[in-house]
Amino acid sequence: MSSTYGDNLKLSIFGQSHGAAIGMTLDGIPAGLPVDEAALSAFLKRRAPGQNTHSTPRKEADAPEFLSGILDGFTCGAPIAAAIRNTNTRSGDYSNLIDCPRPGHADYTAQIKHGGYQDTAGGGHFSGRLTAPLCIAGGLCKQWLERMGISVSAHIAAIAGIADTPFDPIVPETGQVDALFPVLDVQKGIAMKQAIEDARLSGDSVGGIIECAVTGLPAGLGAPMFGGVEGKLAQILYGIPAVKGVEFGAGFALAGLRGSESNDAFRVKDGSVVTETNRCGGILGGITNGMPLLFRAAIKPTPSISRPQESVSLSRMENCTLEVKGRHDPCIVPRAVPVVEAAASIALCDLLIGEGLLHRQEK
Amino acid sequence: MSSTYGDNLKLSIFGQSHGAAIGMTLDGIPAGLPVDEAALSAFLKRRAPGQNTHSTPRKEADAPEFLSGILDGFTCGAPIAAAIRNTNTRSGDYSNLIDCPRPGHADYTAQIKHGGYQDTAGGGHFSGRLTAPLCIAGGLCKQWLERMGISVSAHIAAIAGIADTPFDPIVPETGQVDALFPVLDVQKGIAMKQAIEDARLSGDSVGGIIECAVTGLPAGLGAPMFGGVEGKLAQILYGIPAVKGVEFGAGFALAGLRGSESNDAFRVKDGSVVTETNRCGGILGGITNGMPLLFRAAIKPTPSISRPQESVSLSRMENCTLEVKGRHDPCIVPRAVPVVEAAASIALCDLLIGEGLLHRQEK
Amino acid sequence: MSSTYGDNLKLSIFGQSHGAAIGMTLDGIPAGLPVDEAALSAFLKRRAPGQNTHSTPRKEADAPEFLSGILDGFTCGAPIAAAIRNTNTRSGDYSNLIDCPRPGHADYTAQIKHGGYQDTAGGGHFSGRLTAPLCIAGGLCKQWLERMGISVSAHIAAIAGIADTPFDPIVPETGQVDALFPVLDVQKGIAMKQAIEDARLSGDSVGGIIECAVTGLPAGLGAPMFGGVEGKLAQILYGIPAVKGVEFGAGFALAGLRGSESNDAFRVKDGSVVTETNRCGGILGGITNGMPLLFRAAIKPTPSISRPQESVSLSRMENCTLEVKGRHDPCIVPRAVPVVEAAASIALCDLLIGEGLLHRQEK
Amino acid sequence: MSSTYGDNLKLSIFGQSHGAAIGMTLDGIPAGLPVDEAALSAFLKRRAPGQNTHSTPRKEADAPEFLSGILDGFTCGAPIAAAIRNTNTRSGDYSNLIDCPRPGHADYTAQIKHGGYQDTAGGGHFSGRLTAPLCIAGGLCKQWLERMGISVSAHIAAIAGIADTPFDPIVPETGQVDALFPVLDVQKGIAMKQAIEDARLSGDSVGGIIECAVTGLPAGLGAPMFGGVEGKLAQILYGIPAVKGVEFGAGFALAGLRGSESNDAFRVKDGSVVTETNRCGGILGGITNGMPLLFRAAIKPTPSISRPQESVSLSRMENCTLEVKGRHDPCIVPRAVPVVEAAASIALCDLLIGEGLLHRQEK
Repeated sequence: MSSTYGDNLKLSIFGQSHGAAIGMTLDGIPAGLPVDEAALSAFLKRRAPGQNTHSTPRKEADAPEFLSGILDGFTCGAPIAAAIRNTNTRSGDYSNLIDCPRPGHADYTAQIKHGGYQDTAGGGHFSGRLTAPLCIAGGLCKQWLERMGISVSAHIAAIAGIADTPFDPIVPETGQVDALFPVLDVQKGIAMKQAIEDARLSGDSVGGIIECAVTGLPAGLGAPMFGGVEGKLAQILYGIPAVKGVEFGAGFALAGLRGSESNDAFRVKDGSVVTETNRCGGILGGITNGMPLLFRAAIKPTPSISRPQESVSLSRMENCTLEVKGRHDPCIVPRAVPVVEAAASIALCDLLIGEGLLHRQEK
Repeated sequence: MSSTYGDNLKLSIFGQSHGAAIGMTLDGIPAGLPVDEAALSAFLKRRAPGQNTHSTPRKEADAPEFLSGILDGFTCGAPIAAAIRNTNTRSGDYSNLIDCPRPGHADYTAQIKHGGYQDTAGGGHFSGRLTAPLCIAGGLCKQWLERMGISVSAHIAAIAGIADTPFDPIVPETGQVDALFPVLDVQKGIAMKQAIEDARLSGDSVGGIIECAVTGLPAGLGAPMFGGVEGKLAQILYGIPAVKGVEFGAGFALAGLRGSESNDAFRVKDGSVVTETNRCGGILGGITNGMPLLFRAAIKPTPSISRPQESVSLSRMENCTLEVKGRHDPCIVPRAVPVVEAAASIALCDLLIGEGLLHRQEK
Repeated sequence: MSSTYGDNLKLSIFGQSHGAAIGMTLDGIPAGLPVDEAALSAFLKRRAPGQNTHSTPRKEADAPEFLSGILDGFTCGAPIAAAIRNTNTRSGDYSNLIDCPRPGHADYTAQIKHGGYQDTAGGGHFSGRLTAPLCIAGGLCKQWLERMGISVSAHIAAIAGIADTPFDPIVPETGQVDALFPVLDVQKGIAMKQAIEDARLSGDSVGGIIECAVTGLPAGLGAPMFGGVEGKLAQILYGIPAVKGVEFGAGFALAGLRGSESNDAFRVKDGSVVTETNRCGGILGGITNGMPLLFRAAIKPTPSISRPQESVSLSRMENCTLEVKGRHDPCIVPRAVPVVEAAASIALCDLLIGEGLLHRQEK
Repeated sequence: MSSTYGDNLKLSIFGQSHGAAIGMTLDGIPAGLPVDEAALSAFLKRRAPGQNTHSTPRKEADAPEFLSGILDGFTCGAPIAAAIRNTNTRSGDYSNLIDCPRPGHADYTAQIKHGGYQDTAGGGHFSGRLTAPLCIAGGLCKQWLERMGISVSAHIAAIAGIADTPFDPIVPETGQVDALFPVLDVQKGIAMKQAIEDARLSGDSVGGIIECAVTGLPAGLGAPMFGGVEGKLAQILYGIPAVKGVEFGAGFALAGLRGSESNDAFRVKDGSVVTETNRCGGILGGITNGMPLLFRAAIKPTPSISRPQESVSLSRMENCTLEVKGRHDPCIVPRAVPVVEAAASIALCDLLIGEGLLHRQEK
């Protein structure tokens, strides 16, 4: 199944970039959870396009309409459905796009999978635009986590090879993150923006890394083997277009350490068990240990670039040169930060519902 | 659920390290697929302990007994079940182990999750020993893939910071990989073994990275969003204890490239569409593009080390020093190579069954 | 999860009776399947209310708007989403309804489950109105089955104890069934309508039985144990409000037969294996045998009746008498006939996709 | 998938009638639940063959060996696996059985589905023998329900058309049921046994109906639409070979009632909400209402009868006459009673775990 996620909740996402609407259904959410639509709007705005020079000029309100599941500001136990109308709908003739697939995009694989019937306009169902309904679901989940004292915060760990200061793994500085271009080190942020602008001017794009920290999670969430928190998170994170790597705690760097360096010593502090370091990213044996959950996701450069690129004509089966029309984000990393938070929030709510920790309220 | 995987097949793994037996049930496999038990034994031997100085001395035959699902050398359509008897079963008193959790292990999180009822002997259900039934299922799946012309081969990409030559992303040198210590560059292999031995002598351990290449896959496998090949593979790979990072194609390195560098140009070659480079690792939009599928998994150092480590007494809630008894693998990376192949093979068979490409045979 | 169904396709239904909209997402449908919207409208009209004296006077167009998944008259491989706007939306104060649950309805159990946060207006998510989106999904599935030569047809087997002629189990007379009040024996249909009118006039309601026949199914569909066709069908049929019994073939009557009477003898006919009788309803060991699939569903009388009924005040915890306002169908059986066909069509498409028999088309 | 059940627990059943072993894995069970092996043995004995003249003479100990998941008499949180060795294993040549399918059996459909590779000996994976591992899982679940004050009890409602007294729907007489031939009316039981003996003497078989009552269930279990208790129960009940009908409460009889007769009036009694009658079988809108849950399952006559039957030769594609060798149960209904209880217990534990009501214990 392409677009359905979850064990204890079921998220179903629909829509094509230039179709009538995009949206989502989120089933299995307990009744009685409050919904703060203003906070959700603010969250969605972090993902919205067209807010500054480093993102695409297409401006869309992207205001979701809730079709079901919410009553008088609370979840009512029925599936929550929301839709966003596409104002920029399919009008022209996109049939030529189907012939010459864009490198780095899903055009070619969509053609193979869907045999020519796929919606090619704007990338169809493969468009990054589908992360908007993901953010509706995830923005709601993030609110419910916050009520439980669980904070999900991400920042730009790197863009174009320029690295931000990483989170402190014991006390992540989640409160210091600016909303639209979230970095810990403002100077590094300025350099990143310059690198994005350089790429844009040369008709190119850049990628980056997003680091996310979750604090306030109870210990004991997750399960061994295929029920582990790492696997659950990775599955949904790889559902975000452009993610090509996911690592937890020290991640790939652990491969170069010795056990005496990578093991996090247990200590008693203020009557609780903590670890002195947090190289495991808060997860042991697939289960949270009560320390901050830390992970990083690698985002590839935007594949849509204005430079001429080598491709093929599928109808003539011969090489050709492609020039992608329109303007695209030279870097999607800043807008992907809330998407990563949304995805993580959904996965964590799924786990918390499964443990009976996120449950229905009584009026 | 902890130990169940798959959409179109269902793998269920059971067992504790020192319980009566470990094993697996693999449901949903089409009838009429041949089973080569000798080839399976050879595959399982690659994972078996005690084969050289760098692995644990505990020697176990680990010969699976098939309880169902195979008849006269072919799958019969019924669920395939197999068990491996534990010869090294629980005999002593392990109750003290429950008090002082080993750093880097699941002892503490298992205690929180299972409230003191978990089987602590040898790590219980969290033991790396549970990868043996994973290899039974995966070894069978690997055979069936091979019959379809699909090869799943992994090598040690790095141990203790010593890097092997990576696979050629267009024509991976999968045939050159030695079974028990699989590297492409023999000199690097010698250096890795020395690093393992150094760690062992100092009562420590080392980690590493495993790179896997899958060739012969049809284009069109997978789906967008949560049905993507990356997510499916990551979910099962994170089911392998000690995996803390997974990346596809150029992975995290993509974050530092420009779009003009990371996009793989399409070309027509011998009447087929290929890409000139393979930085996407054979996956675009979650769907295979017909090029080799490439991924890497980070393996943390074995947490069981003989050096004294800082931990806590859970009963007294005070700090203590722990000395882990017994001898353990100073490096599990070589033995994890077939486990990674097994996990990938299972995920790919799941996808192929879903597409109707791995189907029942007619007698 | 309440409102999600399927293994190889995923149907997700949302909405409350008086909310903004009701609708569905159908994920996992192969690309390239034609969609006949006119035929779908005609199918939906069979379920629509207000068409005759025996159904509720509330008239709604119930025209679905497709939000995604269909392009130029064909499925495009993306999830299919559709919504129906509720013209009769929540406006008044329904808070008193929450206090005195209607006998036979879900009012009381919804209160227990959702703690007072449920949407009570018109039954909320428990309303029979939610079968409209089920019919959108099922109406599409029915079309795709028809293209494969598979016909799904139901008729009213009984209303108020008046029995229609049953289908011939070998050659069901599916073509003779009238759309709005589908019976085989027109005289019996007249008597049923009279019984409905009698109930209506006395402020009461009647129930009935729906019999469904599926012809053209390939043999070999389904699996033993929990993957059986009976279980798959029963699960979705019990998703229709008011269904309280499901039986296959001769069903409960089999319990009174001897084996020599209930076993269907195999015979060769025109080069094919057939059975002389069809008491098993076309299913042996959970798997279709190529004969017509036959099942029956029991529909309880509409619980909303205008007569005074005994209930309780939940706030005061004391007995009270309830008079249900508004007018309701004195018999929902005729309108439930297409719903049963829809549900069966969805379950069968799920099975056919799983077997690779309903697959994507090539343009 | 054939043999995997559950949302919040995962039951996986394996084995063929004459293979090495049959067994099950039950994943997702919380840690700390006590296991009474003696009570389980007593429960399994109710299903075991060869205990009286009306069941098959094949005597097997059917003692399960637990391979994992239980430690010192309590669940340890790891998957519970158990196997029963087949003492009566495949030895002869069964290849001729594959040619001439037994009427009423899965021989023919298994041949179509598995293309000739299926295990035909003793019915293979389709054998009623597979209900033994179902009873291991269900017997454990039944124990855990009993600790919560939930009783699951079934009796023979009818055999060969001879009906037992039905349970009182408000206060089911579950304690009066005898274990091996459970009826409420002993005289009816004697008549049933005579009918079974009559069938046996004439080389024939008889079927029946099993009625089950569950008391002590909390209100609020289940969900609307596809998450309803009826659907969950029906899915697992149809996993029992020979079940061809399932109805809840008054079931099919509701179809002939008026709403004023079928609606169960709510009343306050001893400070609780109860219903005066229980025609809904304790379920409204898919959700339990706190009254006894009542359902009935129709069991077809044993298809294996010693009389000559008409069948076909699949190799020659011509009609033939079949004589089934060996002795078989002339009536499986008495032995199916604990199987029905087991299936219901599994489904209810699945629901209770999902609601957080059956959770891990703390040591």
